[in-house]
Amino acid sequence: MDLPSDFDDVIRRALAEDVRSGDVTSNAVVPEGSMATARVMAKASGVLAGGPVFERVFSLADDSLVFRWVALDGSVVAPGNLLGEVRGDARAILAAERVALNFLQHLSGIATLTRAFVGACAGTEAQILCTRKTLPGLRALERYAVQCGGGRLHRGGLDDGVLIKDNHVQIAGGVTEALKRAKAEVPHTLKVEVEVETLEQLAEALAGGADSVLLDNADTATLHEAVAMVGGRVPLEVSGGVTLENVGEIASTGPVLISVGRITHSAPALDISLDVVATAP
Amino acid sequence: MDLPSDFDDVIRRALAEDVRSGDVTSNAVVPEGSMATARVMAKASGVLAGGPVFERVFSLADDSLVFRWVALDGSVVAPGNLLGEVRGDARAILAAERVALNFLQHLSGIATLTRAFVGACAGTEAQILCTRKTLPGLRALERYAVQCGGGRLHRGGLDDGVLIKDNHVQIAGGVTEALKRAKAEVPHTLKVEVEVETLEQLAEALAGGADSVLLDNADTATLHEAVAMVGGRVPLEVSGGVTLENVGEIASTGPVLISVGRITHSAPALDISLDVVATAP
Amino acid sequence: MDLPSDFDDVIRRALAEDVRSGDVTSNAVVPEGSMATARVMAKASGVLAGGPVFERVFSLADDSLVFRWVALDGSVVAPGNLLGEVRGDARAILAAERVALNFLQHLSGIATLTRAFVGACAGTEAQILCTRKTLPGLRALERYAVQCGGGRLHRGGLDDGVLIKDNHVQIAGGVTEALKRAKAEVPHTLKVEVEVETLEQLAEALAGGADSVLLDNADTATLHEAVAMVGGRVPLEVSGGVTLENVGEIASTGPVLISVGRITHSAPALDISLDVVATAP
Amino acid sequence: MDLPSDFDDVIRRALAEDVRSGDVTSNAVVPEGSMATARVMAKASGVLAGGPVFERVFSLADDSLVFRWVALDGSVVAPGNLLGEVRGDARAILAAERVALNFLQHLSGIATLTRAFVGACAGTEAQILCTRKTLPGLRALERYAVQCGGGRLHRGGLDDGVLIKDNHVQIAGGVTEALKRAKAEVPHTLKVEVEVETLEQLAEALAGGADSVLLDNADTATLHEAVAMVGGRVPLEVSGGVTLENVGEIASTGPVLISVGRITHSAPALDISLDVVATAP
Amino acid sequence: MDLPSDFDDVIRRALAEDVRSGDVTSNAVVPEGSMATARVMAKASGVLAGGPVFERVFSLADDSLVFRWVALDGSVVAPGNLLGEVRGDARAILAAERVALNFLQHLSGIATLTRAFVGACAGTEAQILCTRKTLPGLRALERYAVQCGGGRLHRGGLDDGVLIKDNHVQIAGGVTEALKRAKAEVPHTLKVEVEVETLEQLAEALAGGADSVLLDNADTATLHEAVAMVGGRVPLEVSGGVTLENVGEIASTGPVLISVGRITHSAPALDISLDVVATAP
Amino acid sequence: MDLPSDFDDVIRRALAEDVRSGDVTSNAVVPEGSMATARVMAKASGVLAGGPVFERVFSLADDSLVFRWVALDGSVVAPGNLLGEVRGDARAILAAERVALNFLQHLSGIATLTRAFVGACAGTEAQILCTRKTLPGLRALERYAVQCGGGRLHRGGLDDGVLIKDNHVQIAGGVTEALKRAKAEVPHTLKVEVEVETLEQLAEALAGGADSVLLDNADTATLHEAVAMVGGRVPLEVSGGVTLENVGEIASTGPVLISVGRITHSAPALDISLDVVATAP
Repeated sequence: MDLPSDFDDVIRRALAEDVRSGDVTSNAVVPEGSMATARVMAKASGVLAGGPVFERVFSLADDSLVFRWVALDGSVVAPGNLLGEVRGDARAILAAERVALNFLQHLSGIATLTRAFVGACAGTEAQILCTRKTLPGLRALERYAVQCGGGRLHRGGLDDGVLIKDNHVQIAGGVTEALKRAKAEVPHTLKVEVEVETLEQLAEALAGGADSVLLDNADTATLHEAVAMVGGRVPLEVSGGVTLENVGEIASTGPVLISVGRITHSAPALDISLDVVATAP
Repeated sequence: MDLPSDFDDVIRRALAEDVRSGDVTSNAVVPEGSMATARVMAKASGVLAGGPVFERVFSLADDSLVFRWVALDGSVVAPGNLLGEVRGDARAILAAERVALNFLQHLSGIATLTRAFVGACAGTEAQILCTRKTLPGLRALERYAVQCGGGRLHRGGLDDGVLIKDNHVQIAGGVTEALKRAKAEVPHTLKVEVEVETLEQLAEALAGGADSVLLDNADTATLHEAVAMVGGRVPLEVSGGVTLENVGEIASTGPVLISVGRITHSAPALDISLDVVATAP
Repeated sequence: MDLPSDFDDVIRRALAEDVRSGDVTSNAVVPEGSMATARVMAKASGVLAGGPVFERVFSLADDSLVFRWVALDGSVVAPGNLLGEVRGDARAILAAERVALNFLQHLSGIATLTRAFVGACAGTEAQILCTRKTLPGLRALERYAVQCGGGRLHRGGLDDGVLIKDNHVQIAGGVTEALKRAKAEVPHTLKVEVEVETLEQLAEALAGGADSVLLDNADTATLHEAVAMVGGRVPLEVSGGVTLENVGEIASTGPVLISVGRITHSAPALDISLDVVATAP
Repeated sequence: MDLPSDFDDVIRRALAEDVRSGDVTSNAVVPEGSMATARVMAKASGVLAGGPVFERVFSLADDSLVFRWVALDGSVVAPGNLLGEVRGDARAILAAERVALNFLQHLSGIATLTRAFVGACAGTEAQILCTRKTLPGLRALERYAVQCGGGRLHRGGLDDGVLIKDNHVQIAGGVTEALKRAKAEVPHTLKVEVEVETLEQLAEALAGGADSVLLDNADTATLHEAVAMVGGRVPLEVSGGVTLENVGEIASTGPVLISVGRITHSAPALDISLDVVATAP
Repeated sequence: MDLPSDFDDVIRRALAEDVRSGDVTSNAVVPEGSMATARVMAKASGVLAGGPVFERVFSLADDSLVFRWVALDGSVVAPGNLLGEVRGDARAILAAERVALNFLQHLSGIATLTRAFVGACAGTEAQILCTRKTLPGLRALERYAVQCGGGRLHRGGLDDGVLIKDNHVQIAGGVTEALKRAKAEVPHTLKVEVEVETLEQLAEALAGGADSVLLDNADTATLHEAVAMVGGRVPLEVSGGVTLENVGEIASTGPVLISVGRITHSAPALDISLDVVATAP
Repeated sequence: MDLPSDFDDVIRRALAEDVRSGDVTSNAVVPEGSMATARVMAKASGVLAGGPVFERVFSLADDSLVFRWVALDGSVVAPGNLLGEVRGDARAILAAERVALNFLQHLSGIATLTRAFVGACAGTEAQILCTRKTLPGLRALERYAVQCGGGRLHRGGLDDGVLIKDNHVQIAGGVTEALKRAKAEVPHTLKVEVEVETLEQLAEALAGGADSVLLDNADTATLHEAVAMVGGRVPLEVSGGVTLENVGEIASTGPVLISVGRITHSAPALDISLDVVATAP
């Protein structure tokens, strides 16, 4: 699991978005210098993701806060589990609490849903991949959360892989021509993947030298044929309408890569709370 | 519905996050100067939110693109509905497509879920409010989406309202003391709201001069008593465990403000697609 | 007194604005590695504000500088008083000196003038408030300086309070209609204040449910009547042409909030100097 | 008068500082799409400075606003004079009003005070110069305002001129040594000025090849001798305790450059207002 | 040739770096409003690259400047050739001249040197590639200049291709193990290239499933054997000590990719000047 | 040698430009937590410049790296010389290596070429100066490298010196008029230099009170006359077509300042490598 090398900016913007000119409530109600200890508790079952982000939110708010982390990213948590503890200036803890939880609940929600998809493929050779359907500004962290849930990565953006989609094929005038152009132009460090919708297109893609193929919206029968046709020569990715209900059946067709948008764009937050358990003036 | 006055930065970051150093696929496959027309289509039922954001993504990618928008934010859409159309440079449309859809699907998902909560309260005096449980970096846009769905706004951040929560009460040593401190300190332009968990605390809040009260995690019977006790003198907000199943019963207790975290932190994306329908060299 | 949680950016910009590509004088005249001790001295009487800002300027210029602070923000100083001392790299001290003094003299000037207004109200129930008439880019620090001088805060910006001014009343078509719109639209966390110019408008404001009222440019007789009419039910703010000469009379009319633009937009700098008292190669 | 080539950033920060997440009052009270015409009126006598800045604030808030400017920067204005007019979206005008006035009143205040100093030197060969004692973040605009008032520029920062001050002299061990080091090190494009406090030091500076000399805190008799001693060979700058009362006497001693900190750090704002004179739905 | 989609930032920084607080010379010597026409002239032979960047520098300095461009990027120019013409505000032209030329001369220098390497391979199947040895902050533009000179692209950064270098091999404990790890971990959209120094390693790389191989510092005899061993199955890249003198011999060995650091890190500027040919008050 | 006070930004941008979303190779091949020791070795003869920049690149990538520096900036190095050593996290070292070397090789290339020009003037009174012909974004560091090579500084930008060039003279209508305008307008802290092309213009410049003169493209005979005509009264700068071949002859004409564009815009990189010499899991 590769945490992005620098996520301070996204945290700083989130703090600025919430704290703005200051926490008027805590500044009025909590005496300057008050100390507090707070516990992070799971309130639902799921997979934890984002501990280092959670901690960094507090550190950027006040770098004198002391943090003890009990549960590691990628571990399964249950309601009532203690995840960690933060101690220090009470005003700082209260000001950063919401932002820290917003990150942790969202990322853990993604890890939890990803783990569910991965679990539904247990015993098969299939793998669950994330897509570029991420929430604006949060992609790097969401990809990390997908890995915490056992998913694998696809392209990170438009420059680290070639994926010729249906619109490209249409504009180029066919799979063969699109592949030809791509293989002539792109750096030799990138693979060329092409999206197909029929077995005829799949054959065309293989003949055209595609380095991998994405088969979109195929039914199971077609998928079985596709797996056979590819014969392991190149990676075969499938996508479109993948749900927790049908992912197992898809996975059973062979060593496919299953890309799922909803693990990032529609994962419900995992319920986690922060409770002040002790204070001192 | 108040769209934030400036959302270019969040869009620019999203484009940079996805396009990065360039769209290697389109640059290789689509000839420079190719023109295209693409249609935005609903693929599920819901409430549209984010049209101006969607359009702005394309404009920031290429300000010569021409946009025609059919459906307005806040309107109900059904699968197969045409929402809008964009025409212009094919490379620019393909490069911006994913980012634009990521915004539109997320915001429409929020509006759709909010509308469901609002609909479940139909015929009552209750109102649905958003919270600060928003996804990092997207708060202003998500608040707009909540309004598109018929929801109302709560605090935008920690500086435009006082909300004394349980942790504050604990540190201050009681509701009365916390209220006293807040009323003495904060500018006269802000109301002072306090969170309570029992009817005893509610009475204390009213006696202490709270400008509004948040009752957390109360059952319906308690809520009825609370509504009676407040008697319309100050706003009464309720929160905690609100779902589509129970929100109608909560709303039936009186003129309450119901704040719901899941309309922002757990709304699934609304399925919307962009299809190239015509191209020209 | 709430120092803004982060003022590094405004300091960094100020340093960049002054130091630019480097201090050519010190780099030429002061040998690399020279050490110096410098004293901060008051050269006029007033109220100190901005010590932490002053210190932070030096720290951002060179974080190895050692600082000893004698006088605290909010304290009264007289010509010749030692305020503090900084020791360390001579080039760094000389490069940051002007920027640090520019902050300290300006903020102390505001605190000093605010204290004068506050002092002129001694023995009354009136309070001195700052306004949004601050110098561009410096608002948060200036509000802190006002608090150092004993003044209180008003709105920090356009989003943390509703103040319906004469232009709004004119556009809305009257005090009653403007109040009605505001109370229907704004979050329940904000109070609604309205500016009035006559006792008739004041009555209308109270009848319309204003949470507070700003009476602009009233003479003392009118003000007495206004205080009586309000009867302590809501805060009464007065503004317009308030000077050190007339503020005492205004304050004597009752428990009013007196907002004064000139404490921020026209406060003369307090004379403070930094003198190198010892050097070492 | 050289307006800085780009002042958008300082305006954007000022707008962000005031408008923040939005003007809740206007958004609630003024219907979307309302149009207004507003007049900028002088309410006191002085010298105008900052018209283009004022206009730019509105343009950055809403680039469809139409502006007509009557009075030019550098012109004398009197109470009741119409300075300009802005027409367009009412919400935009009301949201930007305060920031635009904060700039215009501050810059005009500086121009006004500068003009007073310049006027007090009428008939002499002396010139009034600004210093680096400017308000943080506003230097370039304040220097422009000084020019509007008839003042001249000194160094803009620490890199566009060498000024050896008393602290440098002390560290270097004397005027001669400090001059020697500076002349050996700095680029040939910069003059080397040195601050002196006595006629002996002045002689030393001239002998050491100073390109100009700053005489600090001298009485008039000394100043007369200094002027004679310099004999027009290099510019002679004087500073320290210069007021409107004594500046004329200083100016009468010869062709001196008089640098005055208070024209930038202590200029009271010029009273200017913006009044909505017509509105349309 | 793919110009980076957005190069405004690098230009803005370059203008800020040079113009800083303003062009004191032109502001003093050239009357405000003076108009000028200036010609861009080649003063040496080479390949032009950077016309759009050159033009953009002037547009960002003053968007009313009018530009006519005669020579296109990628075209060969000779001393005395007119390349283009710019007309408009004289101060703006003079202020932006140096920055615009600094870009144009550097990029054209790269295109010119690249073309020389490409020319030396004429008649062979070899291709010239750039590397990551670019000047900090200028990579995207330098890669564009390489394409203008007929070169091809390699990785743009560390995330759009896998290149296992000698240090990686050493840490992993061998070519086979390093390849195995990479193929197991990286997204299926990226090829895995490995650097080898001997024919034994080359055989190991091919057996391990490398998608391409970089042979470093091989002599011609070894290179011939390597070409034969690879047999066109995967791309073969060569690097190390490539000069204009030896590149032809390297190219003659087969269809190799020759990566050359010096075309970006050591290309001398192409001499180009801008001459004012007409002015008007 | 004055290293710019802050060069973190230019390094951060360079790291972002190269590392982008992460080093996929090292993350896949090098186990998390692996430690390495790497040596920086000269592979060619030259003058070192940029050690602190090199080190800072690594520190910004991972502040736990430990650095030992053997050779100092400005020292002469030969092939095989050990320059320094870095120890710590292997992934961090590999990710930052290329960026660090790109800085060090470029700056050392400049220092090396500058030293060659300086050496060619040995025994004369002439000095080598850099110009504004620097690579965009790198000026401050390149000026430092010039100093490491024994060169001196000219203007850093358009605001720290007046240089009236041929285009200015043409627009002003002559050397005398241009000088007159400049001396009347610019702050007294800046010298006024004027570019001339003939001895007649040189005489005019001296008569007009130029503080220094730049003689462009003169042959040696003319240069001898110019030196005599100036007679040491003001600095005499020469430029235009200066090469390693002719600089000695130019220098022999007298105490001239020789400005050379190619030491910054055309210096080939100095070959330096980083080799991992030890690793630990």
